[in-house]
Amino acid sequence: MGEGLRYHVDGELVPAGEASVSVDDRGFRYGDAAFETLRAYGGTIFAWESHVERLEGTCEALSLEHGLTAAELRSRIDETLAANDLADAYVRLSITRGVQPGKLTPQSEVEPTVVVYAKPLPRGGLAGESVWDEPATVETVATRRIPDEAIPAAAKTHNYLNGILARTELSADADEALMCDLEGHIAEGATSNLWFVRDGDLYTPTTDGPVLPGITRQLVLELADETGIAVAEGTYEPADVLAADEAFLTNRTWELRPIATLDGHEIGGGPVTERLSRRYDERVERTCYD
Amino acid sequence: MGEGLRYHVDGELVPAGEASVSVDDRGFRYGDAAFETLRAYGGTIFAWESHVERLEGTCEALSLEHGLTAAELRSRIDETLAANDLADAYVRLSITRGVQPGKLTPQSEVEPTVVVYAKPLPRGGLAGESVWDEPATVETVATRRIPDEAIPAAAKTHNYLNGILARTELSADADEALMCDLEGHIAEGATSNLWFVRDGDLYTPTTDGPVLPGITRQLVLELADETGIAVAEGTYEPADVLAADEAFLTNRTWELRPIATLDGHEIGGGPVTERLSRRYDERVERTCYD
Repeated sequence: MGEGLRYHVDGELVPAGEASVSVDDRGFRYGDAAFETLRAYGGTIFAWESHVERLEGTCEALSLEHGLTAAELRSRIDETLAANDLADAYVRLSITRGVQPGKLTPQSEVEPTVVVYAKPLPRGGLAGESVWDEPATVETVATRRIPDEAIPAAAKTHNYLNGILARTELSADADEALMCDLEGHIAEGATSNLWFVRDGDLYTPTTDGPVLPGITRQLVLELADETGIAVAEGTYEPADVLAADEAFLTNRTWELRPIATLDGHEIGGGPVTERLSRRYDERVERTCYD
Repeated sequence: MGEGLRYHVDGELVPAGEASVSVDDRGFRYGDAAFETLRAYGGTIFAWESHVERLEGTCEALSLEHGLTAAELRSRIDETLAANDLADAYVRLSITRGVQPGKLTPQSEVEPTVVVYAKPLPRGGLAGESVWDEPATVETVATRRIPDEAIPAAAKTHNYLNGILARTELSADADEALMCDLEGHIAEGATSNLWFVRDGDLYTPTTDGPVLPGITRQLVLELADETGIAVAEGTYEPADVLAADEAFLTNRTWELRPIATLDGHEIGGGPVTERLSRRYDERVERTCYD
């Protein structure tokens, strides 16, 4: 992992292969940590303010007062990109509750561990290739999304076993799991939000359910509005996706990724997916390259 | 943490303060790891076979094939105890899926990271003091236990935020959270199983619900049977605990710990709790010191 790269760990740039955290760090012992996955396009972090806002929400949900300003976090990210001479990159920012005396109950006094990961990721978009090779092969799985009453879905944390268990159910040629809530309504993929199109209208599961409020998701909602595409955020079942004209997934690195098949049924992208993808690329172009 | 102690990390004994894992380790990134909390009494790991069995169950739930035998794991634990000159100790054994290429989907080829933590913990029991200072102050919390459909409760993993969120709800003088399932039935504490006594009979939530099959729990069931105390494993509500004559918590380090109060209502231990505690101490004595 990360050959030749440098990561930013606790304020210092270190070779990725030597980047480590204490085994007593709560991020390791308990997954007691918040994170964000970010994209750099042309050296600029895309939608930084939205990431800052969601990260704050996660830390609030975890009662994790790390004491770092958004500007301090951003400068660590910028230093990491500069040290690696990266313009188009995948970036992960993790903030843990650090090492604390005692056991499970967190102390309010926090010396956080901050890790910035970076690796090259091609630009995609108007001028490049998408980072995914092919449209996604998706399968529904038995593992249900954790309900908000147990862990709020809006918190993006190092507790990722729910998604891992979903992914381990997949057959060898599938690459994303469609997870439902406990009532059998569709929620999201293990690392993506899900969308489908029927008669020209766009549908996506509501974040009233156990659905991460993806930043790419929020942007697609805006782009659909700008483009005059009607969107419904509601409660749906896998059958609704199977009956769709188009379907796609969104996350920070995939951007918009068409769903080739769900449980073996062909769906694919189409004109609405393509229009929104183009709008997305234009937004990246305008905000990161101008 | 761990001043002067040595931990066992990936086959080597290292000073606790330098014991670390890669930031790319899946145990850190995702909490993708299994663990056991163990007790050493007089240099012997108590109920080792039960821990091995549960660890196997956790690894099976995570599809984590670490390739280490129970004997290899045990010898790392014994080496750690010897290196620290510890006879009565807290031991934690963690096995992660290690560093893997790619993203969330686990690869079947695993180079696990194995960490053995140890620290002194007084013996308690017949000849000593209990490790808890006082009976527990317990409060019911709003955070619900994760249902089995999302993550099996029988899997003991580094995804511990559910319990942390429960603990952060507690007022300053409380030390354990009583967590319910989504239907409002009592499940367990953040790090303990719960028991209550009424008219001389013992009650504990069934592991059909989202309840960790604690090894101390299993032993208490056995001891109650030996002692002729009737036990019911069922579905209960906080009101049942409030109306109890006695109540206590169990886990590996607390052993049996009386509940002083639940939500401010006094409950306390009593003759049944005391009989079982004494039986527990005798079992430790017989299996670890003879």
